[in-house]
This record gives sequence, structure tokens and C-alpha cells, in this order.
Amino acid sequence: MNVRTDLAVEAAEFKQLGEQDGLLEAVSTGKIPVSRIRIVNENAARMTGKPMGNYATVFFNGAFSDDELFDLAVERTAEILGEFLKGASNVLAVGLGNAEMSADALGPKVTDRLIVSRHLKDQMPQIYRELALGNLSALRPGVLGQTGIETAELIRGAVDAVHPDAVLVFDALASRRVKRLCATVQISDTGITPGSGVGNHRARIDRHSMGVPVISIGVPTVVDAATLTADALQTIQKSHRELQPITEEWAEDEGDRIREALGGYENNLIVTPQDIDALIDRVAKLLAEATNAAVHKGLDREQMDALSGA
Amino acid sequence: MNVRTDLAVEAAEFKQLGEQDGLLEAVSTGKIPVSRIRIVNENAARMTGKPMGNYATVFFNGAFSDDELFDLAVERTAEILGEFLKGASNVLAVGLGNAEMSADALGPKVTDRLIVSRHLKDQMPQIYRELALGNLSALRPGVLGQTGIETAELIRGAVDAVHPDAVLVFDALASRRVKRLCATVQISDTGITPGSGVGNHRARIDRHSMGVPVISIGVPTVVDAATLTADALQTIQKSHRELQPITEEWAEDEGDRIREALGGYENNLIVTPQDIDALIDRVAKLLAEATNAAVHKGLDREQMDALSGA
Amino acid sequence: MNVRTDLAVEAAEFKQLGEQDGLLEAVSTGKIPVSRIRIVNENAARMTGKPMGNYATVFFNGAFSDDELFDLAVERTAEILGEFLKGASNVLAVGLGNAEMSADALGPKVTDRLIVSRHLKDQMPQIYRELALGNLSALRPGVLGQTGIETAELIRGAVDAVHPDAVLVFDALASRRVKRLCATVQISDTGITPGSGVGNHRARIDRHSMGVPVISIGVPTVVDAATLTADALQTIQKSHRELQPITEEWAEDEGDRIREALGGYENNLIVTPQDIDALIDRVAKLLAEATNAAVHKGLDREQMDALSGA
Amino acid sequence: MNVRTDLAVEAAEFKQLGEQDGLLEAVSTGKIPVSRIRIVNENAARMTGKPMGNYATVFFNGAFSDDELFDLAVERTAEILGEFLKGASNVLAVGLGNAEMSADALGPKVTDRLIVSRHLKDQMPQIYRELALGNLSALRPGVLGQTGIETAELIRGAVDAVHPDAVLVFDALASRRVKRLCATVQISDTGITPGSGVGNHRARIDRHSMGVPVISIGVPTVVDAATLTADALQTIQKSHRELQPITEEWAEDEGDRIREALGGYENNLIVTPQDIDALIDRVAKLLAEATNAAVHKGLDREQMDALSGA
Repeated sequence: MNVRTDLAVEAAEFKQLGEQDGLLEAVSTGKIPVSRIRIVNENAARMTGKPMGNYATVFFNGAFSDDELFDLAVERTAEILGEFLKGASNVLAVGLGNAEMSADALGPKVTDRLIVSRHLKDQMPQIYRELALGNLSALRPGVLGQTGIETAELIRGAVDAVHPDAVLVFDALASRRVKRLCATVQISDTGITPGSGVGNHRARIDRHSMGVPVISIGVPTVVDAATLTADALQTIQKSHRELQPITEEWAEDEGDRIREALGGYENNLIVTPQDIDALIDRVAKLLAEATNAAVHKGLDREQMDALSGA
Repeated sequence: MNVRTDLAVEAAEFKQLGEQDGLLEAVSTGKIPVSRIRIVNENAARMTGKPMGNYATVFFNGAFSDDELFDLAVERTAEILGEFLKGASNVLAVGLGNAEMSADALGPKVTDRLIVSRHLKDQMPQIYRELALGNLSALRPGVLGQTGIETAELIRGAVDAVHPDAVLVFDALASRRVKRLCATVQISDTGITPGSGVGNHRARIDRHSMGVPVISIGVPTVVDAATLTADALQTIQKSHRELQPITEEWAEDEGDRIREALGGYENNLIVTPQDIDALIDRVAKLLAEATNAAVHKGLDREQMDALSGA
Repeated sequence: MNVRTDLAVEAAEFKQLGEQDGLLEAVSTGKIPVSRIRIVNENAARMTGKPMGNYATVFFNGAFSDDELFDLAVERTAEILGEFLKGASNVLAVGLGNAEMSADALGPKVTDRLIVSRHLKDQMPQIYRELALGNLSALRPGVLGQTGIETAELIRGAVDAVHPDAVLVFDALASRRVKRLCATVQISDTGITPGSGVGNHRARIDRHSMGVPVISIGVPTVVDAATLTADALQTIQKSHRELQPITEEWAEDEGDRIREALGGYENNLIVTPQDIDALIDRVAKLLAEATNAAVHKGLDREQMDALSGA
Repeated sequence: MNVRTDLAVEAAEFKQLGEQDGLLEAVSTGKIPVSRIRIVNENAARMTGKPMGNYATVFFNGAFSDDELFDLAVERTAEILGEFLKGASNVLAVGLGNAEMSADALGPKVTDRLIVSRHLKDQMPQIYRELALGNLSALRPGVLGQTGIETAELIRGAVDAVHPDAVLVFDALASRRVKRLCATVQISDTGITPGSGVGNHRARIDRHSMGVPVISIGVPTVVDAATLTADALQTIQKSHRELQPITEEWAEDEGDRIREALGGYENNLIVTPQDIDALIDRVAKLLAEATNAAVHKGLDREQMDALSGA
């Protein structure tokens, strides 16, 4: 099947995997539900297409029309980020993606809103101490087509300069379900492959390639058009049992049919909410506030607003 | 059926209308083919959902990777614009749409590139005469959500100030087929309804409401996600004659099924090429060059580049 | 002398005018001081170069590094705006200036942040009533070079459509003193001449030309380079009494000397703080918050943030 | 004296240095004049405040209103860049500066327009060979306040990844004379100190710190406000010989006087042309075209336009 998703929760749901397959899932409910998935063996990794490791997914539907819910979403995300950071005090944040492409601009928009502090340690030591700032630095590496340099190599260069305890990598993802667009954040300790949200797979950024823990924070901003169509077909097939024999036969060349229906554009057609630019601004705000809170634990909300220029 | 298109050629194709129905079509072939459709009676207008009048559609697939083809597309578009302008020498150009939303920013991006000259008549009369400039003014009215004022009313205000011979209205459209995205321009003398490309129908801008001829120039930048899905389903149904009876029964609640498959987001989900921002810049360049050429007939290419700051 | 300022307080200060000349001034002190000037006769108008009428000037130095002071500045500005609005409930806001020029982008940046509500009256009557929204519409007319149409004519067109009780006009100004840059807002009932902040004088926008009260809200974002230089010279001359005879002789051709010193660029050279882009964002926030508070009296801070997408 | 300039030609002119002082200058005239300065000993370096090495300065006044002159300026700049590159075939371009600050955005705007090709060597080897592309990569390191990381360290990281034969560093400069703003490009083999154009001195980027030749390409976009004022004063003093004794006495506390006249803003007040944003776009175009021509020698103009998306 022609399904593409960067979310572990969707991969697990789609394959209907469970403990016996090597996939552990625990869901906490509430206004801002959180799913925690652990992929514990190679079997589950192969079946989900996701590396072994931990995945937390925060669902924040409705947070952009309810201030209180937004604050709660920031708080929960900061909490979970804190867990993944495990006390790291020197943190390098990386905003992946192409700032010139609406649906891919999330990463750069997050780093633009962070309270970067590493240089203040020397430049304003007193303020740095008084505010009990964490040590945060930030990189916008651009994309391969803009730089001609593998993103992983540029991050590696920054890691060599900063010697962080952990790297936070922000990126736009692809989900399978439109309801998750700009409404879900996945935090994982398995690293990330830049460009996977928009189709160009590149060298992996993870603990192995960077030499320090890499925590990825991703939010789905697009659904692949072929995935959307395939899902719509499947929904209809399911409700017509008499079609079963025919649709089984279909399976073989379904990819071709969808491609035909999409008029030859399959690979780079994306489905987004119409107001994607404004939505991504709000997601970036949420992630930046959560990150600022997780790294700069000593700051109250007012100080944070002042320092981030909000 | 859940099909949405702003293109007369697609409406005609979909309904398979012909001369007997009140729809005349003539197609010129070549590197840059042009279709001319005339909707001559109320019957054809009702069946296509398009007002009676003239529609020319220029197909410029491939123009963005071939300089010569791009120049040809500019030339053909300028030619047809010239026909619709019928010698109008005082022209008000209007860039509809929301400059803050990628897929809707075409109109403002076009007016930003026009060689506006109306004020030079008084300010630099000698240059105005020597270059034999046409009288071009431009308006970016914004969208209702930004202004609180109907776009048609703002344009009407500008018409009262400028007293143009014709109004040119640029807008982003929705097409049914992805292959037409950023690859087709429709020029029509029937006016336009702002926001139709992105779903919010508003007061019509046409000869009737403006008091002068209104020529609309639109390029599809999105496909409605529900339309895409419906089309994909239909493609598959067509190739399975044995499904005919079942799919006929489907027809009744197909809308609901698609809505279900799209997870409740149907109305404002759009399908675009991944690099829509860059594509729209190029379309804006094409339309602005064609308009500059159609209005300022005395300028050669070099003068045009210099005046437009290209 | 080669002095250029759009601020009535500076014109009064420079000419050292008082009650006997037709200029009344009252200053309230406090954390956010306010000066109120009334120019009551033609003599004072001629000597200051400002039309007869009321000018209130709010001084908000330091508000961008102190949250509490910022909120106080918003409050004071909203209060004074309220006085000038005299109960007007249908308000058209106009953001003058060129959004593409850093120092001139203030007006458009303010209107971008307003809570525009006029269309909600019909579209969402219940919300409109429940929130007790005021009737606010907004226009970004662009500048003559972009539109070819006098700004005053475009605003007049919007006034004809909206029939407001009052027009609020936001613009970037020029001050004489650098200490007032992005630190002072002048509110006046005398209208405004678009482009005066950056040198291109145009048709006046005032009660006379619009048919309804016009309240202008301006913040200095530039000092004219020739003014700066002239002021520096004068400061030095003042401290050397023995130079008096010589500097009197200078007076005659001082303009030429400064022009020479400025290397022939005098007319369009501006002096700005280095971080002008960020400063203007903050000024726009201040003015938009004050305007939203003055027009939408029923909203609390949280509702305002939610509605303005802040 | 309170004079600040990043241009070697201005430093030489100001100090009236010659061969006997260790400064060699040769000027070629023509439509696009070029000055070549060589600072050959420590004495000249100290007196000019510029490191020992080669400086070429291209004067392109008028190039933005004359297409032919613009092309000539591109050609001359490409030629001189070629001389400094000495056959380097693997080139890393670095766009210094803050893209969010108008007068400092030159560097990022140049790299945005470069034809980056390094990744095509592997991804599209045939096209790479057929077009005889040079090996060009590009970095936008941001500024210290955005990243918390010294720019020199980030570039060093990219150098380690790319192993270039030479690094090209683009930056906005400060000049002493307004007539040189956006009208002069200085190319030098002495490296650069990021932030010098806008006042924050940082770790030097040169052959020593990078391990490969570093060629800096800078264009003045601002004049320091204190420098402008000091120059204006001096101009006036010169024309009044009788003031000599007094002005000599002045010299001691002139800095204080200017500071007073500038109202305490001295350090971060800049003087720019009013249309600085548009001017910098054009300068970026000029530098990018020259660099593309110098690195990708096999491309003709049309191929270059197509590849750079112009």
C-alpha cells in the first residue's frame, strides 16, 4: 500500500502492532493526551519503518482556538522534552527545513523564536547567572539544494564547536491522517532524516552520527497526496464487503491507478490546510515556548516573553 | 459529484458539452496551445457553472524549465490580453488574494511586478511621452478578513478615482486536474468572484458591478482535496465495468464517504505542488511581463526589465 | 535652518513658541509623560509649519525593555486615542507607507495586527454581539509609486464604502532628535500628508478631504541626515560664543555646506537606529494593542491576544 | 577623529598615505573604474587600520539605472574575483549578516542567488559534467545573537566538511562617504571580521583561522552617523582658515560634542539611503551574477538565468 507517515503512532495503528510484536504503547488521556510508544526490537522497527527507541506524541487539537489549552500544550510538551533531555544543560537546537517553502518552514521558524543564550555566558555573565539561563545555541542549516552540503555535516560542524550535551532537531513531518496536521507533536530519541517530510531522504542525524544524544521534535504539516487518495479508496472498500475479491485484485496495480489519477505529479503533490502559513507560525510558537521552558528552567513567563521579543 | 473547478475548459470537458448545448470551443495547437470557449446561452452557463462570455485558456506546461518557451508563453498571453483589452488605454490592474497565504498570493505578486505609470503622466510627462507608456495603475485590495470591507467595494472606489477603460483582475484559481496547476492561464471577460480559489465566495467583480469591462486573469494554484479524491475514485471505477451497478449506488453518499476519508477537514484542505511558493513567483513573472507588454506597447524588453527592476 | 520634523512638540521647542504666539502646551509627567499642544491661530500654524488643531504626544522611552512600562504605554495611548475618537463606533484604520521599505513600513505593520471586525457583524452576528466588538475596518493603500493612484483617493473610496464615524491614519514620521526615534507617538486631529515621513509630499488626508474626522497616529522612525548634521553643528556653535560672528556669516550658505558634506545625497539619506526593523515591529504592536483597546472596549487582554493571533 | 570605514581606499585617502608609507595604489579608469591597493608593511597596516594584503575596489556608480553599465560591473567584478580565486575550483561561499536587518542582509541575499552545485556532482553527474559546472557550496551562518555560536566556528565546521580551495565571504560594510553606499565593492585577500559593518566585532575569518585562502567581498551599505557628522564638521572647518586655532582646541573633546549632538545614540545610529532595501537587492544580484560567472566558467548568460531561477 502506498502509505507514508513519519509518525510512529500512525505506523503502529496501521499495522495494528502490539506488545507481542515488540511495540509497547501507553496512552495518557486528558485535555492534552500523550501517547508513548517504545519500539523494542528489530521486528517492530521493520514493520513500522521506524528505528528502535522511544516516541512520545502529544495531541493538541484545539489548542489554537483556546488560550488555556495552548498553555497546557506548551506545558506538557516542555515536560516531555525535559524527560528526553535527561538533565542536559548545554543544548544545541537545529531548525531543519527550507524557510522559503511554506509547509517546510517549521524548523527555521522555531529556532527564530528560541531564547539563544550560549554567547551571553561570556558577554553578560551577570545576567546569565541572575536569570539562571540554560545554555542554548541554535542552527538553521538550510537544505541541501541551498547549500550543496549535507545537513548532517553542517550540524556535525556545530556540534564540534559547541560540544552540547544534547541536540534538539525540529522538522516538519508528513502524516497519514489530515486530522493530525498541525495538531500533533512527536518527540523521539531516535534522531531524524532531514527532508523526510518533503520527500528527499538524506544522511541520518542521530546519536550515532553526532556523538551525542539527538532528540527530534516533529509536527506533521503535510499529507502526501497519494497517501490521502489511497486512504480514501480503502475507506470505501472497507464498507463494501462484496468488493473484497475485486479490491484484492486491485492491490497489485493500485499504485499505478493512483498515479494515473494524480496526473503524473504523485511524488511532490502535498495536501495541507489552506491556512498552512498561519498554522505553522502557531506551531512554531508552541514548540519554541516549550523548548525555552525546558532549557531555561529559571525563567517565569513574563521574563520569557521579554527575552524572546514576543 | 463533488467536483470543483474555476476553469471553463475543465467544466466543458467534464460535462462533455458541445455546440448544441451552447458551448463553442476552438483550440489552436503549437508549443503554447490556446483554447477559446464561448458560453453562448443560459443552458451552457448553468451546466458549466460559468457565466456567459468568452474564455481563453493558454497552456504553458514546461515554460519554467525552458527560457524560449517561457518567452513564447509571455507573448501568447500578451496577445490574448490585447484582444480582450480591445484598445483600452487606461487600465486598472487588481491583485486579488491574501499575500500571507502561499497558494493565494498570486494576485498581489503580479501587481508588485507591474510597471505602474499613471502617476508619471503628471510627474514625469516627458519620460511618459518618450517611452510611449500606457496608463497603468494597480491595486492590492487585500481580503475581507484583513480589511472588513468587501473587495468589490474597494475596487469600485479605485474605479471611481481612476476612471479606467478596463479593469484587469488577477487571482489564484482551483482546478480539477493537478496537471494544470501553475501551467494554465484563463483569461475571461466575465469577471470574477474573489476568494473562489480558496473557498470564500463574495460579491462578484464584473462589468455590471464596476461599470467598465472587467477582464479576469486566473491561474490554478490548488486542487480541492475532495475533488482530487473523487477524481481518483472515478478513474478506478471507470476501469472496472463490473463495478458500474455498485458505483451508481455509491453516487448518493459518495460525498459523505470522501468527507469521512478526509477526516472532517474537507472544506479547507488543498492539494498543491510541494514547491508552490517558487512556482507562484514564476507564474507572477509570466503574467506581469505579459501585462506590461500588452499595456506598454512602446517598450522593448530591455526597457521593460529596467522599469520593472528585474 | 535646515530642520525637518513632523512632531509638533519639536517644532514648538525649536521656535520657542508660547501662549502669546498662539501655541498652548500642557505636559503631564509620570512614567509615560504626555504633552498636549494646541495650535490656536494661523500665526502659530505658520511658525511651526503644523496645521491648527490638537496634538498629543506620548513619550514611551524604555517601554521595549520593561513589560510593565509597555503595558502602561499601551494604556495611555489607548486613553488618548479614546479622547480623540469622541465616541466614534465605526472606525476605518489606514496603514500608510511602503511595506517594502523598513523605515516606512510602520503603517502596514499596524493594520496587519488590528482586530478587524466590520465583516463579522453580518458573518458572525452572535459572536459580534457577545464580545461587544466595535466596528473596525482596515485599509493598506500602498504608496503612489506602487499604485499610480493618490493615496487620498483610495482612502476616499474606502470611506464611501464604509461610512465610518472617524478615520485613523497610521504613518511613520521624521523627527529632529534621535532620542525620539521609536520612542514617541503623536496623535492629532489635523490629518496627515502621506509620504511626509520619507520626503514625497502628496494630497492631504484630513477632515476636509475625507468628510469625516481624521485622526493621525504617527511615530518618528527616521531623522533626516541633513537635519542631524545641522543640529550637530548648532550644538557646537552654541558652546563657542567667540564663533558667533563667524557662524552668523555661515548661516547664509550653511545649507550648501551640509549638502557638500553629505556628498550630494542630502534629500534621501536617513538616519535610523541600526535595529530599525525590530523596533518598528514593537512600535506596531504597541499602536495596534492601543487601537484594539480603544475600539473594542468590551474585550479583555486574553480575548484580544486570541483574536489578534498574538 | 571619529572616523569609521571598512574600505581600504577611504582609509588611504583619509590618511593620505603613499608608497613611502608602505601603501601602493593603482587606479584603472573607464566606465567601471577599479582601484588596487596593496598594504605592504606593518606601518601602513597600522595607519589604515587594515591588515596587510591586497584590496581591489570596483566603483559602479550609476549601474542600477543603466543595464549596460550593470553588465559591465558584473563582468569587471567577475574578472577581479577570478584573479583573487587563482584557479580555485572548489569554492565555499559564506553570506554573513543578519537577514532580518535591512542594511545587514546583503550576505544572505547574495548566497540566496548563487548557483550552488556541489551536491549535483553526485546527484546529477551528467548535467554537472555537460554544463562544466564549478564546485560551489554556500553557507548562511546567521549572526551570534541568533545562534549563540561564533560565526567563525560555524564556517570552520563547513570548511571541514567541504574542504574548499577557497572561501568567499560576503558582507555589508560601513563607508565614510555616502557617495560610496551601494556603489562600491571591495574585494580583498585579508579576510573579514563579521559584524564590523554594524558594530559588533568578532573573531576574524581569514586564511589563518580557516586554513584556506579567504576572499572577502564587501559593499558599504551604511555610514556611521558619528562619522557623517564629524565629516560635515571637518568640511566646514577646512573652508574657514581663521578657525584653525579654535578647531585644534576642539579636536580634544570633539567626540563628546558629536555624541551630545547625537543625543546619546552614537553607537548604533546608521545613515542609509531611504530605499536601502531595494538597493541591497540590486547589489546582491550584481555580486551573485559575478560570482556565478567566476566559478561556473562554462555557463552562458541564458543558462545562468535558468539555473538561478532569475
